[in-house]
Amino acid sequence: MKIAIYGYGNLGKGIEAAIKYNPDMELSCVFTRRAPDTVKTLTGVPVFSAERVLDFKDKIDVLIICGGSATDLPEMTPALAKSFNVIDSFDTHKRIPEHFASVDAAAREGGKLALISCGWDPGLFSIARLYASAALPSGEDYTFWGRGVSQGHSDAIRRIDGVLDARQYTVPIDDALSCVRRGECPQLTTAEKHKRECYVVAEAGADKALIEKTIKEMPNYFADYETSVEFITLDELRAKHSGMPHGGSVIRNGVTGLSGESVNTIEFSLKLDSNPEFTASVLVAYARAIARLAARGEIGAKTVFDIAPADLSPKSSDELRAHLL
Amino acid sequence: MKIAIYGYGNLGKGIEAAIKYNPDMELSCVFTRRAPDTVKTLTGVPVFSAERVLDFKDKIDVLIICGGSATDLPEMTPALAKSFNVIDSFDTHKRIPEHFASVDAAAREGGKLALISCGWDPGLFSIARLYASAALPSGEDYTFWGRGVSQGHSDAIRRIDGVLDARQYTVPIDDALSCVRRGECPQLTTAEKHKRECYVVAEAGADKALIEKTIKEMPNYFADYETSVEFITLDELRAKHSGMPHGGSVIRNGVTGLSGESVNTIEFSLKLDSNPEFTASVLVAYARAIARLAARGEIGAKTVFDIAPADLSPKSSDELRAHLL
Repeated sequence: MKIAIYGYGNLGKGIEAAIKYNPDMELSCVFTRRAPDTVKTLTGVPVFSAERVLDFKDKIDVLIICGGSATDLPEMTPALAKSFNVIDSFDTHKRIPEHFASVDAAAREGGKLALISCGWDPGLFSIARLYASAALPSGEDYTFWGRGVSQGHSDAIRRIDGVLDARQYTVPIDDALSCVRRGECPQLTTAEKHKRECYVVAEAGADKALIEKTIKEMPNYFADYETSVEFITLDELRAKHSGMPHGGSVIRNGVTGLSGESVNTIEFSLKLDSNPEFTASVLVAYARAIARLAARGEIGAKTVFDIAPADLSPKSSDELRAHLL
Repeated sequence: MKIAIYGYGNLGKGIEAAIKYNPDMELSCVFTRRAPDTVKTLTGVPVFSAERVLDFKDKIDVLIICGGSATDLPEMTPALAKSFNVIDSFDTHKRIPEHFASVDAAAREGGKLALISCGWDPGLFSIARLYASAALPSGEDYTFWGRGVSQGHSDAIRRIDGVLDARQYTVPIDDALSCVRRGECPQLTTAEKHKRECYVVAEAGADKALIEKTIKEMPNYFADYETSVEFITLDELRAKHSGMPHGGSVIRNGVTGLSGESVNTIEFSLKLDSNPEFTASVLVAYARAIARLAARGEIGAKTVFDIAPADLSPKSSDELRAHLL
């Protein structure tokens, strides 16, 4: 199975590493919008200019597109889906229907297969929500994120005057999590479920009180949340906060029995040392499924909801039934 | 969607209740091997003799077979799969391949579709193992069961001389569970992961010390486990131990990154007030999928690995993408 990577940032590097754990796959090459000779891959796999991608039509089974959801993927995925079987990790939940429609049209035009919005949320968390709501139709869903680094919130802090660097962790509030895990069904807003921990490196002489106030009062990002701000040195930031951990839990409480007398709780949780590496690993498993479905003649756009679990595994159906069922 | 139940014990009653939470389904009838007029259903749905089941061929979309795995299902499921789309909860893990083969042959002979080994283990736990191993190919799986009532172990205690009634709970050992959740990868036997709590009602004048010794030394069932025995009254057993709670966790720890430097943990957990009601609720969700796949012309035997998540939900693909992805 020949895989190629389109876009070589953290996610692209994660794909490169993930393929090493999947012996039925081979990484053909990386495409970049930068000057190819300025990009050095982790494993020495060749790098080509994104402009040359069409030269590789029919030489690649699945192209994994590693771009941002704001502006990259809405352009890239439909454009590439005309010529390749593709996967992306489009994660702007509200715009999924329009992205799906444009990718579906493009893939059908080219007779190709595309999987959008793969990863863990959207992705494995979405699947957990679906299985849980099918198994417990009468119930309530809760999604908790973290403890993990939010790039968007870290960037928002970095844009404040006097801030040299920053890292923001989204952290589930213990009391809310315990309450849901006990099978209670409270109504909770996102702000009631999460707090925000900020580690900030200030420029010499910066007004730290003002920076802290600016963070805590920032609308949408922090104003509604319990937010803590700690000033640290650049060395400390590098030593203790250079990783990209993340995770979270999808929990559903639902009732069964003739009069709803039994309460049942389903929980799916992730604790990740590396968010981009894990996301990449999920994308690579789905690349296997997309290659298989394409070989069976399927075309158009799909999501993780449309893929049977068996198609993700390198094992045969006989092996899966004998050892995993 | 017309559903019928074949076998009316705890699981059958659970199916009857679960259908009430699925407005796109209708329970047509119950088949029993007992005298039909001695069976009173929870909702008043009609009861027929199992001998008359073939009269209902073509009147039922999916027949859910509620029998025991030891002797019932190996006979019943292939026999019924010749004439009906069927689902069973066959849970003798070691005999799944042979059961699959015999059901597959029967279903193909009759042009019908069959799903075997549905529920939560095998079932949702199996799916969790598959997704986790696909997302983290290099790692280790752990399954913990409980806290929950084990019928087999309760029955084993009841067979001891001087025992009037008993209830056995399988309980995960906290230290083992915490160790695995921390992302460590210990080698653990089933006995190192679980302890066994026994609540026993002894006959008046019975030798309690001997009963306790007999339980704790019983090979396979208790001898290898940390086992506690508490003698209680029949009233206490009825008041505190009449439910059928169960649950457990499937956990996978796996590495990502070029040299396996990042540790990631995936956990899927269930906490169930009622094991048979929840199992039934899962079977009913899969009945929806089987009816859909059968309508698309699929035949033969399937397992939960072969069913795409979208087919479990009453919602359309558009709705799922817009609200659940």
